[in-house]
Amino acid sequence: MEQPTIVAGWAARDANGLLSPFSFPLRAKCEEDVVVKILFCGICHSDLSTIKNEWGNAKYPVVPGHEIVGVVTEVGSSVARFSAGDTVGVGYIASTCRDCANCREGFENYCAGLVPSFNAALPDGAKVHGGFAELAVVHERYVVRIPGGEIERVAPLLCAGVTVYCPMRRLGLDRPGIHLGVAGLGGLGHLAVKFGKAFGTKVTVISTSPGKEAEAVERLAADAFLLSTSAEQMKAAAGTMDGIIDTVSAAHDLTPLIMLLRTHGKLVPVGSPGKPVQLALYPLQSGGKSVAGSMIGGMRDTQEMVDFAAEHGIAADVEVIGMEDVNAAMERLQKGDVRYRFVVDVANTVARAR
Amino acid sequence: MEQPTIVAGWAARDANGLLSPFSFPLRAKCEEDVVVKILFCGICHSDLSTIKNEWGNAKYPVVPGHEIVGVVTEVGSSVARFSAGDTVGVGYIASTCRDCANCREGFENYCAGLVPSFNAALPDGAKVHGGFAELAVVHERYVVRIPGGEIERVAPLLCAGVTVYCPMRRLGLDRPGIHLGVAGLGGLGHLAVKFGKAFGTKVTVISTSPGKEAEAVERLAADAFLLSTSAEQMKAAAGTMDGIIDTVSAAHDLTPLIMLLRTHGKLVPVGSPGKPVQLALYPLQSGGKSVAGSMIGGMRDTQEMVDFAAEHGIAADVEVIGMEDVNAAMERLQKGDVRYRFVVDVANTVARAR
Repeated sequence: MEQPTIVAGWAARDANGLLSPFSFPLRAKCEEDVVVKILFCGICHSDLSTIKNEWGNAKYPVVPGHEIVGVVTEVGSSVARFSAGDTVGVGYIASTCRDCANCREGFENYCAGLVPSFNAALPDGAKVHGGFAELAVVHERYVVRIPGGEIERVAPLLCAGVTVYCPMRRLGLDRPGIHLGVAGLGGLGHLAVKFGKAFGTKVTVISTSPGKEAEAVERLAADAFLLSTSAEQMKAAAGTMDGIIDTVSAAHDLTPLIMLLRTHGKLVPVGSPGKPVQLALYPLQSGGKSVAGSMIGGMRDTQEMVDFAAEHGIAADVEVIGMEDVNAAMERLQKGDVRYRFVVDVANTVARAR
Repeated sequence: MEQPTIVAGWAARDANGLLSPFSFPLRAKCEEDVVVKILFCGICHSDLSTIKNEWGNAKYPVVPGHEIVGVVTEVGSSVARFSAGDTVGVGYIASTCRDCANCREGFENYCAGLVPSFNAALPDGAKVHGGFAELAVVHERYVVRIPGGEIERVAPLLCAGVTVYCPMRRLGLDRPGIHLGVAGLGGLGHLAVKFGKAFGTKVTVISTSPGKEAEAVERLAADAFLLSTSAEQMKAAAGTMDGIIDTVSAAHDLTPLIMLLRTHGKLVPVGSPGKPVQLALYPLQSGGKSVAGSMIGGMRDTQEMVDFAAEHGIAADVEVIGMEDVNAAMERLQKGDVRYRFVVDVANTVARAR
């Protein structure tokens, strides 16, 4: 039996969430797998929640990271879509059952057998480690082609991007001229603004921070800014929005956002508060409004999103860091102190401390 | 100036909610108004909530009742759609602005200027009293034609019926072969079962009461019954329903119902708990599911519903009472002790105690 490749990565060992060097054997490549040399990996808020075990599901050691861009080094014998040298992306999904109605219809993201690309194990027991590592082995179905661009800025599209793009597309919030609200201006929110503008919608950023106004309007070309702590502004904007992508990750009352919606408007909370939120039914009922759940996107939608982004020049605004700075970055992420996504330069820094 | 007609009705005077005889002047008929001699009026749970001021908006004296069937006695000079002798219905809506986008598109139910048909006042200040009275004056737009049938059984369609019919139609829960859940088997629930069967859906009644199983399956021809207090049954039914019409009026956690939905399933709470409910976002997000608000229906939908019901032999199962028994009926309604709707024989009993 061939000796497994030993991969340099960084992992959290317990709920303090501190990351440090961790080596592990790469899982054996099967005939439908692609081996990816990881170049860049974005940091998503769910990486932070997982390494700190905020959702109670951490399987330490945890190598986080699921916004991966890299280059193919090897492919399994039956892989036809990719070959060595291709620039590719891997997002939240490492595997699904490939047999259920959801998988057949392109909704792998809703497959009951979904295995995430980090902090997980495949049905055969093989541990799945994330993108804070030199290499990853991934079934070709969950790999997308990256059409080019600044790949460190493309990485966050693989989770944050598709998380906001997919509901906008599937819920009709991509129609030119409609009024789209984007609550929260972080990794997800700033991409929602960019996609919204590319779709031709009128975008209003909704935030508790007055300091975000200049960022929203000047830097990101949002059409308007709404300070959600201002009762006056909230009242003036009531009933004006066709949909809201709510990227706020802290638990919050949905009612003030529902009040901003027009008749038949849709509120899409894409953050993960980890505990139930309050929902007043009457404001929902009296406007025929909906709270629509959405989680990342299927593989077809993910490829479409990456291609759409390339075509429209959309990429994340990022701060690239070395792996040695990842713990400081996690602390800053906790405070929302990043414009708008940390991306780790994995290839050049992950193995330094080995 | 002509002396106003004095109308015999029954009203609640304060938050004890007890109804007793109350006479009031009929508002003057305008050129677009229809005068309706009220024959029957259903009792909706929101009548009960209003007379007891549970929502804090009672304007005493309150003459309740908004599931009205009657006969036209007079019409205003510009009314062409109706003439004396027509059998007609009036539901929750007495007036709207008739000028906004919602009104123009047939969503009068979502007009910001909606004036209910009881416990309300028109923009000119004229008090609007409900269906527990001899006569009502209503703008013709808010009057529907009743195509026949047992009119005492048609009355509850005007609110309960359209409240369940409209979201089923508008949210795609009317497709033959889909699996529809109906939570709660009361006035609204039993009509949702009937419409669901007429649409050709597979209907499962969801209830906390084991005693409702025979009613659901034998009396109402539901396809299945699910006891929501049984963890085993709830687990077995998880992920099987395309939509749920949730008619439960008490505040409740929506999560167990959301768990019953398939990917992209829709939960439609049509009850009015009067306080916020708990909503766990992850079960909603991880299945692309929605909580969709809906409130009664527009006038076009209401007419369509009444016509559809007539065509398919759908009417409410009712217990007809005289006005003198209305307080006892309200007590029984509070306990859910009615199969499935009380209807007051207004014409024959409202004036007895005058």
